[in-house]
Amino acid sequence: MTQTSTTTRLAPHPDRLFPADPGARAVARTVYDAVKDAPIISPHGHVDAALIAADQPFPDPAALLITPDHYVLRLLHANGVGLEALGRADLSGTHHEPPGRTIWRQLAEHWDDFLGTPVRYWFETELHDVFGLDQAPSAGNADAQYDHIADLLASPAFRPRALFDSFGIEVLATTDGPADDLAAHAQLAADPGFTGRVLPTFRADAVFDPTRSDWRPVVASIAEASGIDTGTHAGLLAALRARRRYFIEHGATATDTGVLDAGSAPLSAGERERIHAAALRDPSSVTESEATAYRHDMLYRWAEMSVEDGLVMQLHPGVIRNHHTPTLERFGPDTGHDLPAVGSFTEPLRPLLEAFGTAPGFHLVLFTVDETVFSREIGPLAGFYPAVYAGAPWWFIDTPAAIGRYRSAVTDSASFTKTSGFIDDTRAYCSIPARHDMARRADAAYLASLVVTHQISEEDAVHTARRIVSDIPRATFKL
Amino acid sequence: MTQTSTTTRLAPHPDRLFPADPGARAVARTVYDAVKDAPIISPHGHVDAALIAADQPFPDPAALLITPDHYVLRLLHANGVGLEALGRADLSGTHHEPPGRTIWRQLAEHWDDFLGTPVRYWFETELHDVFGLDQAPSAGNADAQYDHIADLLASPAFRPRALFDSFGIEVLATTDGPADDLAAHAQLAADPGFTGRVLPTFRADAVFDPTRSDWRPVVASIAEASGIDTGTHAGLLAALRARRRYFIEHGATATDTGVLDAGSAPLSAGERERIHAAALRDPSSVTESEATAYRHDMLYRWAEMSVEDGLVMQLHPGVIRNHHTPTLERFGPDTGHDLPAVGSFTEPLRPLLEAFGTAPGFHLVLFTVDETVFSREIGPLAGFYPAVYAGAPWWFIDTPAAIGRYRSAVTDSASFTKTSGFIDDTRAYCSIPARHDMARRADAAYLASLVVTHQISEEDAVHTARRIVSDIPRATFKL
Amino acid sequence: MTQTSTTTRLAPHPDRLFPADPGARAVARTVYDAVKDAPIISPHGHVDAALIAADQPFPDPAALLITPDHYVLRLLHANGVGLEALGRADLSGTHHEPPGRTIWRQLAEHWDDFLGTPVRYWFETELHDVFGLDQAPSAGNADAQYDHIADLLASPAFRPRALFDSFGIEVLATTDGPADDLAAHAQLAADPGFTGRVLPTFRADAVFDPTRSDWRPVVASIAEASGIDTGTHAGLLAALRARRRYFIEHGATATDTGVLDAGSAPLSAGERERIHAAALRDPSSVTESEATAYRHDMLYRWAEMSVEDGLVMQLHPGVIRNHHTPTLERFGPDTGHDLPAVGSFTEPLRPLLEAFGTAPGFHLVLFTVDETVFSREIGPLAGFYPAVYAGAPWWFIDTPAAIGRYRSAVTDSASFTKTSGFIDDTRAYCSIPARHDMARRADAAYLASLVVTHQISEEDAVHTARRIVSDIPRATFKL
Repeated sequence: MTQTSTTTRLAPHPDRLFPADPGARAVARTVYDAVKDAPIISPHGHVDAALIAADQPFPDPAALLITPDHYVLRLLHANGVGLEALGRADLSGTHHEPPGRTIWRQLAEHWDDFLGTPVRYWFETELHDVFGLDQAPSAGNADAQYDHIADLLASPAFRPRALFDSFGIEVLATTDGPADDLAAHAQLAADPGFTGRVLPTFRADAVFDPTRSDWRPVVASIAEASGIDTGTHAGLLAALRARRRYFIEHGATATDTGVLDAGSAPLSAGERERIHAAALRDPSSVTESEATAYRHDMLYRWAEMSVEDGLVMQLHPGVIRNHHTPTLERFGPDTGHDLPAVGSFTEPLRPLLEAFGTAPGFHLVLFTVDETVFSREIGPLAGFYPAVYAGAPWWFIDTPAAIGRYRSAVTDSASFTKTSGFIDDTRAYCSIPARHDMARRADAAYLASLVVTHQISEEDAVHTARRIVSDIPRATFKL
Repeated sequence: MTQTSTTTRLAPHPDRLFPADPGARAVARTVYDAVKDAPIISPHGHVDAALIAADQPFPDPAALLITPDHYVLRLLHANGVGLEALGRADLSGTHHEPPGRTIWRQLAEHWDDFLGTPVRYWFETELHDVFGLDQAPSAGNADAQYDHIADLLASPAFRPRALFDSFGIEVLATTDGPADDLAAHAQLAADPGFTGRVLPTFRADAVFDPTRSDWRPVVASIAEASGIDTGTHAGLLAALRARRRYFIEHGATATDTGVLDAGSAPLSAGERERIHAAALRDPSSVTESEATAYRHDMLYRWAEMSVEDGLVMQLHPGVIRNHHTPTLERFGPDTGHDLPAVGSFTEPLRPLLEAFGTAPGFHLVLFTVDETVFSREIGPLAGFYPAVYAGAPWWFIDTPAAIGRYRSAVTDSASFTKTSGFIDDTRAYCSIPARHDMARRADAAYLASLVVTHQISEEDAVHTARRIVSDIPRATFKL
Repeated sequence: MTQTSTTTRLAPHPDRLFPADPGARAVARTVYDAVKDAPIISPHGHVDAALIAADQPFPDPAALLITPDHYVLRLLHANGVGLEALGRADLSGTHHEPPGRTIWRQLAEHWDDFLGTPVRYWFETELHDVFGLDQAPSAGNADAQYDHIADLLASPAFRPRALFDSFGIEVLATTDGPADDLAAHAQLAADPGFTGRVLPTFRADAVFDPTRSDWRPVVASIAEASGIDTGTHAGLLAALRARRRYFIEHGATATDTGVLDAGSAPLSAGERERIHAAALRDPSSVTESEATAYRHDMLYRWAEMSVEDGLVMQLHPGVIRNHHTPTLERFGPDTGHDLPAVGSFTEPLRPLLEAFGTAPGFHLVLFTVDETVFSREIGPLAGFYPAVYAGAPWWFIDTPAAIGRYRSAVTDSASFTKTSGFIDDTRAYCSIPARHDMARRADAAYLASLVVTHQISEEDAVHTARRIVSDIPRATFKL
């Protein structure tokens, strides 16, 4: 489906996402106005610290806004555009890389296929607010818009650090491998000219699963980085503790973990040493049930370590990675075919929560891509366990409508205090302000709905909106 | 619960289903006005082509509007009216068929028990728009309304073909058995006096499951119809391919399949021949796991054939058929106790999508009666795989509110292009215009909600509404 | 998160929970006005009949409003307040019971942590309407509000019977053990000065599961109460039948049952006698699958007995009891960590419904804490089986927003007649009027939404609202 040829104005409305009813809209405006200019706290994302440390100009518009963003890739792919035409390297070696201008045109010509999606919504805000465009992308203006953005990217005001300031970012957490030396973070922290906070997050998914092809290399890299032998499971845990301390010394306040399921049953020391040794010797000798047991135990240990060292534990089970093997083989991971699985928390997390659910200072933030668990599992868990926080809707459900459904489902059981605040989870640097603005608007709309139905006062709504963008993420993530 | 005795006016409001807020309502009206008179494209339904070919007057009002419609039967049954009192033949042989007038009275006396349901909503539109009634059914007017409708049914304007024209139907797809000779379709296509398109749809659920009592007869009937021996599995596939070609020659653009689950793992040729031979020899020798494996393989073959011959593949797993055995034994199938199962697509369809998810020209339309899968599975699948389309909410969730929830859930991941357009799925011929009108109104309401929250422009909303009733079903179903 | 120091007015708005749109609000007001003063019918709750029979003054405000209410406990606990600080007896023996005044202060200081929850909503109505307070609880007014309520509780107007009258309660069902002598019920029924109806409900969850530690004592107590030997399974069934008759003689119209799942497959007499005998001899010899089979059979027998004696069968599977063992061991059950499981009805109830789903006079009311089953299972079951009624949303989903979602999901398949009417399910006596009022407002809002979208008339809405608070619970619960 291609765009109609007429030019459409691009002018994001100042009242967008607010309720239509004039009374409710006035309240939403008041609530939003109280937070619209608040600094951005981004405690969970995938921007590379080296990008900000190096502060080099961005490459062309497509390489910045399309090729690395799996949200954009998947919708273009769903509408018939091959990933090779979007600049993704073809690992089969037959690749002919299209020019950025050609990639940009794909987006422009498929603009209609994004109608009503949050991806288009963010893009519109971003193109207008960051890049000063006033027409919607179309076949007719694709070249001109490409050139306009490319020119801007060459200017000093569009370098990563300048954007960090103009976006109003106060805290930006990155996601980093367990053996990372965090040199970019250290460089930024030591730089008196850079006043933002760029914090690492400890993520070591590979160590959970001894059947992953990268398990042995990652375990070895942790040994090297920590100087601790990981030949035993006890050694691995000691090495992980050391690496976590290293991250804490570099500003980290949290870990992040993605696993297939939230099973958390602990193993005896003997059992975990046995499986660990077998996996080091010959991964193919580890059965599926042994691998699962090892993984579940590791999730339990993760919580145990958080109780010890105070790092906030983020957990997002339930994503099926790389659903389409031919695409994985040809274009690698993060190409738009990670898909949601059925969510489950209450039963699988029970061993972990029995042990640590009331441990002082332990924070466990649960994320899901299956909305059904908000009212059935995450809200009720956050509404009893001091440790549990209801993570913001994320990835597929990071949308205005889904944020409203999340608030409605979770507030009933857990109010606002036990939530995470907004999480942009993005590798699309320039979309950060648009995403946070969307969340502030969606929360203002939800709070306004409570005000106009006289469930809370307008004063409470404004106070809560302020907490959501500041006190709540600071407290939840120990910032 | 019986109807109050006072007479209630029946006057469907021109603004029904539109949002209450005056600004939003005005937008919804504009959007709806752009499509309200558009021709009806009905790519999935259960009207019999022979009915239109023969063009005989309908029997009495109850036999047209109540007895064959399981939507109506189930609600009356739930409120204490036995199916024998609604004209269903009692297979136990003790049947005394009630007069149509008596059946009609049951509906009239239980009108209150339908309040707020889509069944009552369709009925009201139908009674008013098609039959010109201006009072709600009640005990007091039951006889008069029955007589009024009976008189109309005797007139030429109420013959099937005249209604086809006055309903504004452009395309009507039927559902047909794999050995059907499609004589009625051929007759209609050859008739210069009939300008509508009545297209067959290839449906052969029985061949999927070798433990079904009708598996052997259906397999035999396909051999006879195709002239190809189905004694081997390879023969069955060849015969099915031939029958699909026959359907294509008679205008078919799609197949339809209902299965218990969406499992799609292929078997080796040896395995499927082995189970096929065993089932032909002695169905009772086929184990449950063999039957499941055979069924899952057949779903995979179905996709393979669609990739070859271009027929759109419709799939609706997840319905538990004939939940109440005593009712099945006494009154047969389609008597209101088919019930929704938990939906699951992403994992079970993986083998099929690994193989064919990006095959050029392959269209796979997924339907569900479990709403939870729209945001978790169907939306995300349609938002990556070129082959996957998100089918409209169907059967139990074919309602104004559920259509809104569907649009909200699916649009986030897949926008509008990758959806099916409205599916009436009905055997109630006279409800077709009411159902399509309901969907147009519900979509107008959803689009208006995006406009008044400034997520899309009014121009985009009108353009999209037009696509939903025309371009989208034409493209999805290759019409 | 502590309360801001400024004083906030407490003045529940007369239009609370109604839609914001002025037209819709006017309709909601009209609908609500028709039912706001209707007597309260409470067919399912946990107030102790002895409380009303004895009619003694309540103890202090905390012991009335906080310590026994797990809704309040869990949110305070989630926000860091230990149960020992809320007056729960510490079974480990190290308990130092805090004064009521100190407990009350915990609530006041955490008032912000309840924002937007139904618990705060009920509390506000209750504090204002029942206790005449006009400030929101805060650290600053905690002592004064505590003293104010304590003074009122000492006055005759705040004795249980006086409140029964001033709350406008017409029928109050309690929940009672199978061996209970129902002396308090008998005393109330015999008292000419007490005109309310306080009805027992037969609940015997312990007999379903032979591996429960209280199974043998409860089975023995039923033998003693009935004078029938329960040494055989047949004896147990006979004793249960006798006890049910006893309950019926004391006014009971219903049973209530909570089980882990809704499995209902019957066993042969031999099998159930075998497991029963084994469990009496040595419960540890009963395997998990035997226990499950015994439990599923008992659910089937429960329905069989209801068909015989006419008691309405209430069923609420799907709650994981006492999720946090350390809390259970220290503070006992009902301390806020019962959590929702995934709901499932259609498949597990099939044997029971095959046998009794169309039995004359059988009423089976299904409750869930998993919202996803309303549209997928409970609505469709209630929309076919004469016996099945869709229970109101309950416990975690007993909230204004969830009531709206329930109505939308269930009405589509089952309209209003096949629902239960509101269920307060509370042990918080003084919250009863606030909870029923909330439900009446939420239903008025839902009905108004149907009126302003022209799906039903305002007259129908008023008529339906009246049925929901009177005819429907009377018919469903045979009152």
